[in-house]
Amino acid sequence: MDLYTKHKEILNKSIDALHLRTFFAAYPEHPKAYPEDGDANGRNTFKTHLGRKFEELKVDTSQWIGSEESPYTQEKTGISYPSLTVSEYLEKSKGSLKDWNKVHVTERAGILVESLERFKERFFEVAYATMHTTGQGYMMAFQASGPHAADRAMEAIAGGLEEIRRFPERTTWDKPMGKFNVVLEKKWKAIPRGVSLVIGCSTFPVWNSAPGIYASLITGNPVIVKAHPGAILPIAIVVAEIRNVLRESGINPDICQLAPDTHDKPITKELAEHNDVRIIDFTGNSEFGSYLENLEGKEVFTEKTGVNSAIIDSTTDARKTAANLAFSLTLYSGQMCTAPQNFFIPANGISTPDGTVSYDDFKQLLIDEINGLVDNPKAGPFVLGAIQNANTCDRVKEAGKIGTVVLESRDIQNPMFPEARVMSPSLIEVDSTDKSQFNMELFGPIALLIKTSDTEQAVKLAAQLATEQGAISCAVYCTDNDKKAWMEDELTMAGAPVSFNLHGAIYVNQHAGFSDFHVTGGNPAGNASLTDPKFITRRFSWVGVREMA
Amino acid sequence: MDLYTKHKEILNKSIDALHLRTFFAAYPEHPKAYPEDGDANGRNTFKTHLGRKFEELKVDTSQWIGSEESPYTQEKTGISYPSLTVSEYLEKSKGSLKDWNKVHVTERAGILVESLERFKERFFEVAYATMHTTGQGYMMAFQASGPHAADRAMEAIAGGLEEIRRFPERTTWDKPMGKFNVVLEKKWKAIPRGVSLVIGCSTFPVWNSAPGIYASLITGNPVIVKAHPGAILPIAIVVAEIRNVLRESGINPDICQLAPDTHDKPITKELAEHNDVRIIDFTGNSEFGSYLENLEGKEVFTEKTGVNSAIIDSTTDARKTAANLAFSLTLYSGQMCTAPQNFFIPANGISTPDGTVSYDDFKQLLIDEINGLVDNPKAGPFVLGAIQNANTCDRVKEAGKIGTVVLESRDIQNPMFPEARVMSPSLIEVDSTDKSQFNMELFGPIALLIKTSDTEQAVKLAAQLATEQGAISCAVYCTDNDKKAWMEDELTMAGAPVSFNLHGAIYVNQHAGFSDFHVTGGNPAGNASLTDPKFITRRFSWVGVREMA
Repeated sequence: MDLYTKHKEILNKSIDALHLRTFFAAYPEHPKAYPEDGDANGRNTFKTHLGRKFEELKVDTSQWIGSEESPYTQEKTGISYPSLTVSEYLEKSKGSLKDWNKVHVTERAGILVESLERFKERFFEVAYATMHTTGQGYMMAFQASGPHAADRAMEAIAGGLEEIRRFPERTTWDKPMGKFNVVLEKKWKAIPRGVSLVIGCSTFPVWNSAPGIYASLITGNPVIVKAHPGAILPIAIVVAEIRNVLRESGINPDICQLAPDTHDKPITKELAEHNDVRIIDFTGNSEFGSYLENLEGKEVFTEKTGVNSAIIDSTTDARKTAANLAFSLTLYSGQMCTAPQNFFIPANGISTPDGTVSYDDFKQLLIDEINGLVDNPKAGPFVLGAIQNANTCDRVKEAGKIGTVVLESRDIQNPMFPEARVMSPSLIEVDSTDKSQFNMELFGPIALLIKTSDTEQAVKLAAQLATEQGAISCAVYCTDNDKKAWMEDELTMAGAPVSFNLHGAIYVNQHAGFSDFHVTGGNPAGNASLTDPKFITRRFSWVGVREMA
Repeated sequence: MDLYTKHKEILNKSIDALHLRTFFAAYPEHPKAYPEDGDANGRNTFKTHLGRKFEELKVDTSQWIGSEESPYTQEKTGISYPSLTVSEYLEKSKGSLKDWNKVHVTERAGILVESLERFKERFFEVAYATMHTTGQGYMMAFQASGPHAADRAMEAIAGGLEEIRRFPERTTWDKPMGKFNVVLEKKWKAIPRGVSLVIGCSTFPVWNSAPGIYASLITGNPVIVKAHPGAILPIAIVVAEIRNVLRESGINPDICQLAPDTHDKPITKELAEHNDVRIIDFTGNSEFGSYLENLEGKEVFTEKTGVNSAIIDSTTDARKTAANLAFSLTLYSGQMCTAPQNFFIPANGISTPDGTVSYDDFKQLLIDEINGLVDNPKAGPFVLGAIQNANTCDRVKEAGKIGTVVLESRDIQNPMFPEARVMSPSLIEVDSTDKSQFNMELFGPIALLIKTSDTEQAVKLAAQLATEQGAISCAVYCTDNDKKAWMEDELTMAGAPVSFNLHGAIYVNQHAGFSDFHVTGGNPAGNASLTDPKFITRRFSWVGVREMA
């Protein structure tokens, strides 16, 4: 059975899911859905990589590089990866373009889903690789770098298959001209844009890279994966499996290459600026993202930084609201692009069914919930994870300069990793008139409490921040329908996705595959809206061919 | 009956047509399909505009400007249009954005199709307005500015309606979590990007502007139509009808504004560079188009110039081939963006069923066919039309410097307009090694004959020109299937649409609505691929809203 036939059912289900947007997952998110010995095997396999050459890419070179370090042990992993020159990557990539374009899109889809099936067998191994490069907690590392990333890849494959099949491959065009007809045979081809560069980030090396990799591949473009020097192994495993399936299918594996670099010798700019690179996917800081967006003649997809707001106007349960927001903020120490940062609370309090909760009382609820979570030895260290980059710790320590510290960040002990870089969230009070203190992203476990004259001021500030600085999420608590409708208009017109009244086991940080578009493209936070058809269609051009019948 | 219900059938047919890509027209192209007195009435109504204020836009201002001149009479039309300041246009546009966004996409579609129905009543009037601004012949002016432009607008409305309805407006997302479910109510909104600027051109003021106008409007963006100072009236009539329907529907007419200017006081840059302008559609020269493409933070759709090739390898009938190409070149004096310019002919001739036709013999056939056409008093002047811009005449006169003139451009008398600016095509021989002479667009009735060592050289040169300079069409004559397949690959990979072996009443210049995408976006000739979904989807962002159920 060919690979397309093998995977046709899941592809069709995935295409449907994109349009239904009800709950759907191609890969279940819970580790328990996978073999019982998966975790132990994955952990062991991960350990075999340490201190070794990562040979699976089967690249012929004498240059091996790598500088990853575990935020849990603060030790080098000692893994090295094959390295080529920028022009070697580009030559190999260009050399594979025409061949890959000749593989029919259904066959490409079959190959790519097969690579996800291989990847699935390594979800646990990738989870440990992710923990020890990004600092994510185990559960997040498993889900975000495993099933959630595979689902995001499946979305791209399904979307690409759908987009390319939306127009007929050929048709007879028969135009009545009165006494005779003009008959043409017409064909349409989805022509790939060219070499695609996917630039990874240090915090979500698979989740944030897989969509771009698979979206470029399904549309016929060869891909160079420039992993972040701090987080190579998780995505290297995925690239290795893509190359394996290509090779087994008799196709040039250099359609998907890994291009690692080190902090000392970065190669990203040289790759990005090269004339042959036509598509760039990037996740990271706004400055570099904007530099990439302004390179001429390239299609650039970005997830940059934003200033995410939480607006608390009224709630059915102030403690539940505080608990939900405390978790959002604590999860992976605020190192998610969707984590809330600016908490807008009205000066005269939050209305609830039990009366008004004053600004100070809500602040205390938030502090209590954060402390309760981080001090719970069975939850705190695992929800917090570790800080990926030591610089983040320095910035947290200096955050006191921004305003009045109402909750100090503390070192929290991780029982399994005594050397882990762990910091609890810091809460800082800032005046609502002091916009220069809160109109920028403060990456990591830093949140600002901003007392506003009323909710209207909060919404205007949040919408303005989204328009000017970007926003990838916005949490709103409000029980008044008219007010909600107005807030929804103001915030969505600023391109900010809005989550109303989340309580319990769902958080503003979470953007679900097959349902949430993620970044909107409607503000400066980036344009990599993962299930927006543009994420696929900007990677190819339609070119028509017609011939006299 | 509401306007959407009224026009639902044609909208659904149009959406189907986009995906079937068999012959379809929402508006029949032949004048005979319209009322018998339509032509006389249209001509008379056109004459009533001359020397008067164009009051139909109902804009309250004391500033009236206009500098149009007829290429047929070389006299000023004397028509003036209401003029505001750039900031006044933008204030009105921004002021209308939220209201228009609140009109449901189906209602927007109904309003926009209704405006096309009103426009249809004025096809003949617009035809005369087009003749006397662009210099197009009557039949082209009727078709291109009337039914063909309306069809292109209908495509945009249908495409927009389809794109925005591709995802559900709302759904219940019900995620099983083991012991309980997380249930969210989710909504998705297509948020318009913002003020849209459509910059018209002097040769196709309706055909090239209507797609961008309607694509921006259907996706919720207000539009400012900056007509070319040389060709305002045709599109002013369309804008007036859009405003009429908006006004009658109780909606702010400033959602669609006309912003005229004059050659002396252009306002395009001031508009384009303004921060509030978020979408730009442009047809015109490459230099200005590239300047627009490089403006930051805007979605820019361009149809720039290209170097279109014709490659003659072999044919079933050399005379028919020469006749077809002669017509393509003569039609509207080569002032179409799709007109062929560089004719590549192999040094050892063209193979035909009757033996090889030598390079010189094919050249002579081409010369004979051009002369036959332009000297035919019943066809020549009407196919040629008039030269829109007097500068084009100067460039034709100087074209002899490029190479060896084998056919001189001549003044041709138009029996109805003795003062018309008419020039027949100039044919110039250039050496295939002298790339600097043929690697640029020579706008107007200038064609180059380039003798190549063989077809392979021709294809390589044509593909390289497309990649480097852009190409919007490519005519190929070849009877060998293997060679054709290879040529198709080389040329489509360079983003050039390919037309094989056109003979008879179909020409490489013609790109049919609901079938041909037009510009591909795959080379520097521009990215305004009219039925590519990107032409619609880049004008809005998907923003999600979710709420705890």
